[in-house]
This record gives sequence, C-alpha cells and structure tokens, in this order.
Amino acid sequence: MTKARVVIEGLTPQVDCGRFPARRVLGDTVSVEADVLADGHDAVAASVLYRHESEAQWHGMPMSLIGNDRWQGQFTVQTLGRYLFTVEAWVDHLESWRRGLAKKHEAGQDIELDLQQGAALALAHAGRMSGPDARRLREWAHALTNRTRDGDERVLLAQSEALHELARRSPDPLLVHRAEPPLAIEVDRRRARFSSWYEMFPRSAASRSGGHGTLADVETLLPYVASMGFDVLYLPPIHPIGEVERKGPNNRTGAAPGDPGSPWAIGSREGGHKAVHPSLGTLADFRRLLASAGAVGIEIALDIAFQCAPDHPYVREHPQWFLKRPDGSVQYAENPPKKYQDIYPFWFECDDWQALWAELKSVFDFWIAQGVRIFRVDNPHTKPFAFWEWVIGEIRRAHPEVILLSEAFTRPKVMYRLAKLGFTQSYNYFPWRNSKREIIDYFTELTSRPVCEFFRPSLWPNTPDILTEYLQFGGRPAFVTRLILAATLGASYGVYGPAFELVESRPRESGSEEYLDSEKYQQRAWNRDDPASLKDLITRVNRIRRENPALQSDAALKFHSMDNEALIAYSKSSGEDAVLAVVNLDPHHAQSGWVDLDLAALGLPADAPYQMDDLLSGARFLWRGPRNYVVLDPWGTAAHLFRIRRKVRTERDFDYFL
Amino acid sequence: MTKARVVIEGLTPQVDCGRFPARRVLGDTVSVEADVLADGHDAVAASVLYRHESEAQWHGMPMSLIGNDRWQGQFTVQTLGRYLFTVEAWVDHLESWRRGLAKKHEAGQDIELDLQQGAALALAHAGRMSGPDARRLREWAHALTNRTRDGDERVLLAQSEALHELARRSPDPLLVHRAEPPLAIEVDRRRARFSSWYEMFPRSAASRSGGHGTLADVETLLPYVASMGFDVLYLPPIHPIGEVERKGPNNRTGAAPGDPGSPWAIGSREGGHKAVHPSLGTLADFRRLLASAGAVGIEIALDIAFQCAPDHPYVREHPQWFLKRPDGSVQYAENPPKKYQDIYPFWFECDDWQALWAELKSVFDFWIAQGVRIFRVDNPHTKPFAFWEWVIGEIRRAHPEVILLSEAFTRPKVMYRLAKLGFTQSYNYFPWRNSKREIIDYFTELTSRPVCEFFRPSLWPNTPDILTEYLQFGGRPAFVTRLILAATLGASYGVYGPAFELVESRPRESGSEEYLDSEKYQQRAWNRDDPASLKDLITRVNRIRRENPALQSDAALKFHSMDNEALIAYSKSSGEDAVLAVVNLDPHHAQSGWVDLDLAALGLPADAPYQMDDLLSGARFLWRGPRNYVVLDPWGTAAHLFRIRRKVRTERDFDYFL
Repeated sequence: MTKARVVIEGLTPQVDCGRFPARRVLGDTVSVEADVLADGHDAVAASVLYRHESEAQWHGMPMSLIGNDRWQGQFTVQTLGRYLFTVEAWVDHLESWRRGLAKKHEAGQDIELDLQQGAALALAHAGRMSGPDARRLREWAHALTNRTRDGDERVLLAQSEALHELARRSPDPLLVHRAEPPLAIEVDRRRARFSSWYEMFPRSAASRSGGHGTLADVETLLPYVASMGFDVLYLPPIHPIGEVERKGPNNRTGAAPGDPGSPWAIGSREGGHKAVHPSLGTLADFRRLLASAGAVGIEIALDIAFQCAPDHPYVREHPQWFLKRPDGSVQYAENPPKKYQDIYPFWFECDDWQALWAELKSVFDFWIAQGVRIFRVDNPHTKPFAFWEWVIGEIRRAHPEVILLSEAFTRPKVMYRLAKLGFTQSYNYFPWRNSKREIIDYFTELTSRPVCEFFRPSLWPNTPDILTEYLQFGGRPAFVTRLILAATLGASYGVYGPAFELVESRPRESGSEEYLDSEKYQQRAWNRDDPASLKDLITRVNRIRRENPALQSDAALKFHSMDNEALIAYSKSSGEDAVLAVVNLDPHHAQSGWVDLDLAALGLPADAPYQMDDLLSGARFLWRGPRNYVVLDPWGTAAHLFRIRRKVRTERDFDYFL
Repeated sequence: MTKARVVIEGLTPQVDCGRFPARRVLGDTVSVEADVLADGHDAVAASVLYRHESEAQWHGMPMSLIGNDRWQGQFTVQTLGRYLFTVEAWVDHLESWRRGLAKKHEAGQDIELDLQQGAALALAHAGRMSGPDARRLREWAHALTNRTRDGDERVLLAQSEALHELARRSPDPLLVHRAEPPLAIEVDRRRARFSSWYEMFPRSAASRSGGHGTLADVETLLPYVASMGFDVLYLPPIHPIGEVERKGPNNRTGAAPGDPGSPWAIGSREGGHKAVHPSLGTLADFRRLLASAGAVGIEIALDIAFQCAPDHPYVREHPQWFLKRPDGSVQYAENPPKKYQDIYPFWFECDDWQALWAELKSVFDFWIAQGVRIFRVDNPHTKPFAFWEWVIGEIRRAHPEVILLSEAFTRPKVMYRLAKLGFTQSYNYFPWRNSKREIIDYFTELTSRPVCEFFRPSLWPNTPDILTEYLQFGGRPAFVTRLILAATLGASYGVYGPAFELVESRPRESGSEEYLDSEKYQQRAWNRDDPASLKDLITRVNRIRRENPALQSDAALKFHSMDNEALIAYSKSSGEDAVLAVVNLDPHHAQSGWVDLDLAALGLPADAPYQMDDLLSGARFLWRGPRNYVVLDPWGTAAHLFRIRRKVRTERDFDYFL
C-alpha cells in the first residue's frame, strides 16, 4: 500500500525483463524511455537515474514527454563496464497548478485563492530544500500572495520556468515512485561495434614454400594485413596439437608423419591451452607479435576452443573432467552415427565442475596476462550457458575492455542467448542469406528490438569451415558482392584469408562447404601478389568504412525499394554522414532497375537535386526525387557505395533568385 | 553458479514481466509456452507446473516441442481466483541416448557399450524412484544388458515409450531448472467474458407518465429486459442525491424544486453510498429486485462512483478526506476553467488515506452483502491505481466471482493499466471506431498480445454520456449497424436503453455527444411498445449470441478482405462453430462487393461448396471458393451473420462416385 499515485511501465532499453543488460559502446548516448501514468488530470514529472556500477550515488536527468504518456531522457556512458539506470516519477502539483492558473486567468476568473494555493505548494518545496534555493522559493511564495502587486504580474511570475525547474528538484518523497529493480547497460569499447577482422593460419605464413609458418612469419605479414585496412588479426589455436588420432589432409583418419593435424585438436605432451605449438615458436615470439601488431594498429584475436585431444595433459591430470564409457575409456565427441575420436569434450556435469570452470577461466587469464584482449570463442553453444555467464562476468569485472566473438552456428535462440550472456560479437547466418528477401528479413530482425539491444553481428563471407555454394559457383563477382555486403551491412565483419582475397572457391567435394586441401589440416602456400587478388578492393572498402561514421554502426540501417529482385538498396546514417549501397546480387548478369528512395528518412529534399558520390568508382551522379535508375554489371561496377551529399547548389542559392 | 544446463525464456502467457496476471475464465484450457534451451545436442524435456493459489502442491503436465526450441503444455482452470504456473526443464540424457542408439544401430555400429550406458542411466532414474516404478526401470536396465537376448530386440526395448515416460518423472534434481518466480492467471466466471448488458435509469421506469420510477417499477420491467435476451441489468447510482448545488434538466445550474438531480452527485442528509434513494424505495425493495432478476436469469450491476455531493455525510463526518482551499472551503472538482461545484472528489493524498481506502472498500462490502456481484465503476482513472489494485485484490480474495466493469474513457495506457490492476471488463473506444480501417486496427490491437491477455472490452454503441455523431446522423440504420457490430465484435456488449432501442438520437446541442433532455438530470417517459423499436432485432441478435459459442469469446476474431471500404467482413470460431459477419458501415447507401475469405483459417475446402446460413434473415447461400459477392442495403438487409456450415453434400459423397 502506498499513496504515491504515479506508476512506471515499459522502461527501455530492456532485455528479457531486465535479466540481461543492453549493450552500448563508450561515448554512446543512452536514450531511456518509459510510460509514466497517474490517475486524474494532474501533471507528472520524471527523471532518469543512472550510475556506473562503481559509483555509490545516482545521477539524475530530467525526462520530457514525447507523447501518449511516454517520457524520454538520456545519459552518456563514459566508462567501460556496467551501468545501472531506472526512472523516478511523481505527481507534480506545482505544474498542475501552473497550468490551471493560466486557464482560469484567461477565462477571467478570480485567482486570488489559487495564488494562495500555489504559494503553499512553493513553501512545501522550500521546506524540503536549504540555502539559497529554499530562500528563492520562499520569496516566490510571498510575491505570489502579495496583493500590493498586480494580478497579471503575479500570474506571469507563477509561470516562471526557472522557479518551477528549481522546485522540481525537491518533490514530496511520499509521492515519488521509483521503478525497481534498476536495469543494466553493459558498455564495451568502440571496437566491439566497429571492427574489420582478418583470419589467417600461422602454419601457412611461411615465406619459403613448403615450410611450417611461424609466429615470426606472421609478424612479417602484418604490413600486408594492415595495408588492406584490417584492425583485428585472428589466429586459429596456436597450441600444441594432439598426436593421438590426429587427422590428415582433407580430414582423413590416420595422419601421415609430418601432417600437422587440426589446430582445434588441442593438447599434446608439449602442453595444452596455455602453451604455444613449438613449430610456431615461443611465448616470447607471441608477445613480440602482439607488440608489432599493436604498432600498426592491429589487435591479435586468439581462439578459445574448450576441448582436448586425447593426449592433452588435462586428460591425464584431471581425468574426473571427462565422461567415462562403461569400458573405462574416455567418451569422445559424437553426433551419432558420426564419431570424433580425436576430440574429448569436457564433462561439465561432473562432480568437480567448479574446479573445471576455474581452470577454464585461468586459460583466459593466462592469455590476458600476455596482452590479448580479443577472443574468438569456438563452439560456445556446446558448453553450458551458466559457465559463459560466469566466466565472462569474471573476465570483464577485471578487464571490461575484453571482446569475445561467439562462433555458434546453431539454432537462432541459442545464438541470441549466448549474446545475452555476454558475448560482445556473434557470427550469424549472413553466409547463407543471399537473396534480397533473405537479406532484408534477416537484417531487419538483427537491427530491430529486441535483438539489436544485445546481439552484435559480425559478418563473414567465408570462414575455414564455410565456403558457401554462392562463392563456389559465383566466381569472382560473388566474392566482390559478398565482401561489399559484409562490410556495409555490418559495422563488424571479417574474411578468412588469403583464401578470400585470392578467390579460393574449390570445395573438398560437391555439396560440401569444406575447402579442398583446407588449411585446417595442412599448410598452404599462397601467392599474395597474385594480380587477380581482391586486396585493392578490400583496401578501398575498408578505407570507406573508416571515413564514413554511417558504416560504423548498424543502428540506422534502412532498406529502400527497388523494382528488380536481383538488386538491393540500403542506407546507413550517422549524424551528417549518410551512405547508400546499391548491390547487384546476381553474380552472372548485368541488372538494372529503379531505386525508390525514402527521401524523408534520408533527410533529402523532395523537389531539389542531391549529389551521389560513388565511393567505389569515384563517379558522381546528380539525382532528384525518389526514383533513380541504376545499372550494375558483375564484371564491371557490381555495386555503388554512394555518399549522399544533401546540399547541392542551384540557382536558388544566389541572392538574386526570387 | 549451477551445473544445470537448461535455460527457460519467453514464458507465456505473461503480462508486464509477470507484474500482473493474465486473465482467463472458468473451464479455460491455458496454453503455456516457453523457449527451452540447452547447450550442445542433448535432448531436453519440460513440464508445466501449476496450482491454484489455495493449493500447497504443484501439479505437473509434460510439455512438447512445437518447433524452434519452443515448448507447449497446458492445464485447465477449474476454480475461481488466482492460479500460479511455471515451467521446469532439464537435459534428458536417457532421451539423447535413445536417439543416438537408434542411429548407431541403423549405421551398423557395435552398440554393446551404448546399451550399458543406457542401463546405467535407467538405474540412476530407478534410484530416484521407489516401489513398482523403480522395479520396472531396474528390470529394464537388466534386460538392456542381458547378452543372452538378441541385439535387435534390446534396441527395440531401448525405445519403449512407456519406460521413457516413466523415467522422465524422475530427472536428476541437480540438472533441473525451474523458471522463477512463477507467473499468475486470474480466473473469472464465464460471464466476465460473455455478457449482454442493458442500462436503465430507475427514475424513468414508472408505469404512469410523469411519476418518479421506483425499484419496484424496475422489477415490473424485468420481463421486458429478459425477453430481449440481456443477462445483466445495470442501474446508475441508486443513492440519495445531493441537494446543494444540484443540477437541473440539461445540466443547468440551479435546479428547480422537484428536479431530481444527477444520480452521480451522491449523498445527502438521507445518506450516502450505502443508502437507497427514498424516491426509489428501500433496501428491502432492492433485495427483492435482485431476487426477481435472478429468477429470470438477470444479474443486477450496481454503479460505484467514488465522489460526493457537498451534503454527503462523509463531508461532515470525515472532513480530513477532502482537500481544503485556502479559505477553508472544500475543493470541488475542476478541469480548469470548468468548475463542478456539485462534486467533491476524495483527497487520496490526505494523511488519513488508509482509513479512506478502508471506508471505500466497505461500500463494496455492503453491496456484496446485499447480493450484488457485478459493479460498473465510474471514472476509475480519477482514483489512484494503487487503491484499485488493493481494493480489487481484497474483494476478490473473498469473492472471486465479482465482476468489475471499468468506465475509464481516457488515454489508452491508463485504460490498459486499470485492466491489469484487476478490472474484469472495460469500456473502450468502440463508440468512435466507425470506419473499416479504424475497426480493423482497433480490434486487432484488442485481440492480440499483450492486450488480449488482460483487457476484456465491453462494446457500447451508446451510454448516457455518449450519443455519437454516427448515431445522431445515421438514423435507424446506424443503430442497426452499431448494434450488430457491438454484439458480434464483442463477446461482451451493452446498450443504454430504452434510448437505444427507441432510436433516440437528438443531442443537447450541435457538436455535443450529450442527449437532449438526458435522463441524467430528469425523468423520461418511454414508449417501450413503439412499433419502430429495435427490440425484435436485439432479441434475435442476443439469441444468435447464445446459440453460437463462436460469438462468446474474442480470441479467434479474424478480419477478411473486402474490395469495398464501406463493407467489413470478420469471422469468429470456437470448435466446430464458426460465424462470419458482413456489415454495411454506410448508413445511407446500399453497398456491394466481393468478400475474399481466408478459407484455410476457417477450415473450409478450397474446391468444394460450403453453405452459409444467414442467422439474421434465415436465408441460405451456397458459396464456393474464397471470393463471393455480397450486397447490403441499410434499409433492408444491412448485415449478414452467417453460420458457416463446412460440410455440404455433393455427388462425391455417394458410394458410386469414382
């Protein structure tokens, strides 16, 4: 029971009734909205309260009504980690009085009693304040009821916004209602939202053909990666690789001597998740690579794959962490009838699960201590949700700058759950969304509430596991199209190279998405200077991304109509910057059509020309009105990336016009 | 930290994150859904847990997967009041094992070890059970590993649904996750959903012209109301009416002697909210009316209007419940610059608010003690939300059969909040939704989640306060159309009579929705036998409602396309019963067009005829396919109410066909 008459509903941003935080990046302005309702016709007032988790005191920001009982306020997040926020509201008698007084005065009614009522309210506010503020409200009250002053003058004084603003700081605490419990915002650094990833197997980094690449070889390739404009270099696991049940090239059972095996079969007598594979180098080499990468603006992302080869030291040292079969052997990974005898999963339901969790956390801690701040997590959907929530919470408590990319190609709700639990970025279904309808539907879902509040997609045209049919059959134009889609639909994207820029499109077998002679099981020699390489296009696209804030967030993605199913048009905006992409999805034929722009959404005039600068080709077009013609040829200009220049000079700009 | 690997999301039905119950009526089957997720590829299982608030033990019902990780289960509500429910889920190792075993066996793999694993799992389940159930599982385990038995036979045994069903009753408690806290369902009696209201002023019930009607006169009119098929008779306030500042006919200030005043200006020296107006009769008369009404299947609904005339006894006995102006006078109701000096609102923010709440509750208690179980609450949106939540909770704890109709014509979120707080039915914007687009949009909102979970609309074409322009200018056809819309779009509806059936359409002044010579301020003499009365149509419509379960709920409302903006088509279904309404919204002209039925939604064949029986006219039509022609004349057949007869005989029904 309470006599506070105001209620608060529909507080946003909110994920799963507050069970999870919404995610933002440093410097973001968080817009908070809520429905604030009271009985009757009285005015209400509301404030956003917010604080960083590390602060003891709440900060308040007044909210304003945006219509239909919905109020809005905002605050800016300046510190990494967790913020809390809520809304406080109350019936604002002084404001109700002000409004009523004005209407009565206009209607010519006697307002002497009303002025006395207002003075009493002002004095009540003064009684809850001290010092000069209280004095100002008291003086106001006296002036309102001073009959030696003119009535009109006192009605004007009653409307003083400054004094009402002052009084609003001290509502009657018995009438204030606060939404409980507060909601949370998790703040990441800006690279969590805007990043360009390049994946590379160190084993294939050797400068001399046939040799096993090393971390030092990777170091020599940093200028190559940096020149293309990538800012994250992701390495598959760099740990010792199991020798028991090792796989040969093209995933053959029974490796031959010298076959390097899969880097995801982690652990051998040479060490486990905290060791560096001797063929790649030493921990010192790794730290030097980190430093060299940092010097050219690149962060190294490490792979975390929580599973073991049969000869991983954990299997011997902690047998209780692995499920035993009735014959005493360790249960290998299975997806019946398939068997993966080279991989032992951890048994998360074992009695010693707490020690297992702690050890796995120590793997993160170890690499964080080496300087790593970005992790790509392999198959997180095959480890318990509760583990991820705990371990990510622990990691980010000490290191809120850590970024984790979830590699969970699984059912949609499981992928979303992992993001809610704390993964900063997520792989997603982009590789298989190729038609216009598929792309519009999927990216509308990803950029709408609730998904956009917690899930940050990272768009990969290819990975070592995914060579899509679109890439297999579409030739070079397919690679161009998918690159441009990934880099402009997604503020974060990545490619697995050099397979990508060298247009590697041979599958292991028909119907498979596996690469032929995949680097997962063998070294590959790549000709990075191949004149057919897409590296110049990649360089240009990444520069366009850096120069256009519109492409650095997915918040304002908008699709525009086109009358050709093979052509897709979408825009992104950020402040003054606006980019329109028009892409030919057909890798085989030239396509043409009319794009029908939503001019109002782009802030473009309905009846004046505007300039479209194609950032890919350098060409410039003068458009006017919503409908404009486009022709795109997969072997020539396969896409336009227009920067929209809203203001074009016309004769009307001259003084003498009119 | 927990090692339970399953999580539960998106539990429905759910209102405002569980802050409020969803509403159902007695006998309803509640469909519960939830997303159940676990890591990896293991099978999961889930149960609905439910109990009436008065029960100590949960009941369990197994759920089944309906796709995309969503599970569904159900239970039936058999008791009035509050039910609680939640979902429990767990990783089902035995089920994972069963599926894997079948695949391995099919692939010809050796499954002896797998049978041992399954036997161990079965024994674990047995260990958590007792008696014959435990014994059955133990025997099963032994049979699975009995090598004297054939392998195929044991694989078959492993699939036994009966034994799996048994085992599923005893999951490992360490692996079980339960969604907390439980959610609530509030169960009303069936009349909360399906009711036909008739509003009547007792003051105009007199059989002799010019006399003040009495409760005894109302009693004599019961057969008239019952014959039309209404089951709720709602009376405006029957209490003594204030004499101070009393209003005269047509809301004139300054009543003449003999003017009866507004029944909503409650209280005089003759008593307040617990008294009967002496001109109407006595409390004994009221109890006799209740009994007589009950005998003809009618419930009496009483008006609860928490406000006072200046001479209400409360003003003298509890002055602390009213806000004082600076001159010591009591603050009357205001909507500046309008003043309502005949009405004193309660001051809910007074220091004595708890005593005020208790007294107001005692008003309900008093009339419940007389036998009233339905209340129409006047302007609940001008009394605090917290009060309503408390008082309705208290009333329904003792009398869960009580129905409360909220009369809050105010902003949409306030109306919804009141419903969430416990009002059983609600007035709404139906009176002002006249065009096809308005009707489709509004009723789609009302019958979709989340609104349909807590808000039950009651549709009134008119009230003593609302004579819409549509009725003022549309003549008799407008009354016919609005009656049919109210009675078929809404499982609950009502009319204010005899103004409605006698097609009273004169406003007090142009642009006003007030009736001329409104019964709110004077007696009226009505000719209930007027041959122009709509009573026969009302009688027929109410009979159609009683005979068609489809019209007794709003859950399955569906709009169908029509190519004429003046014609609207919608269906409702319940089990085998399906009704299609086609209504001409134009009260001035005949309109024709093609209705385009969603045959699949109606369970109709695409390529066979079906019969449409017009329940209003008795005419029968044979339709085929989705598109069918309709012509409706406002002065003839203004609407069709078809019962859809899905099965029509054709020559194919004969044995010799083919």
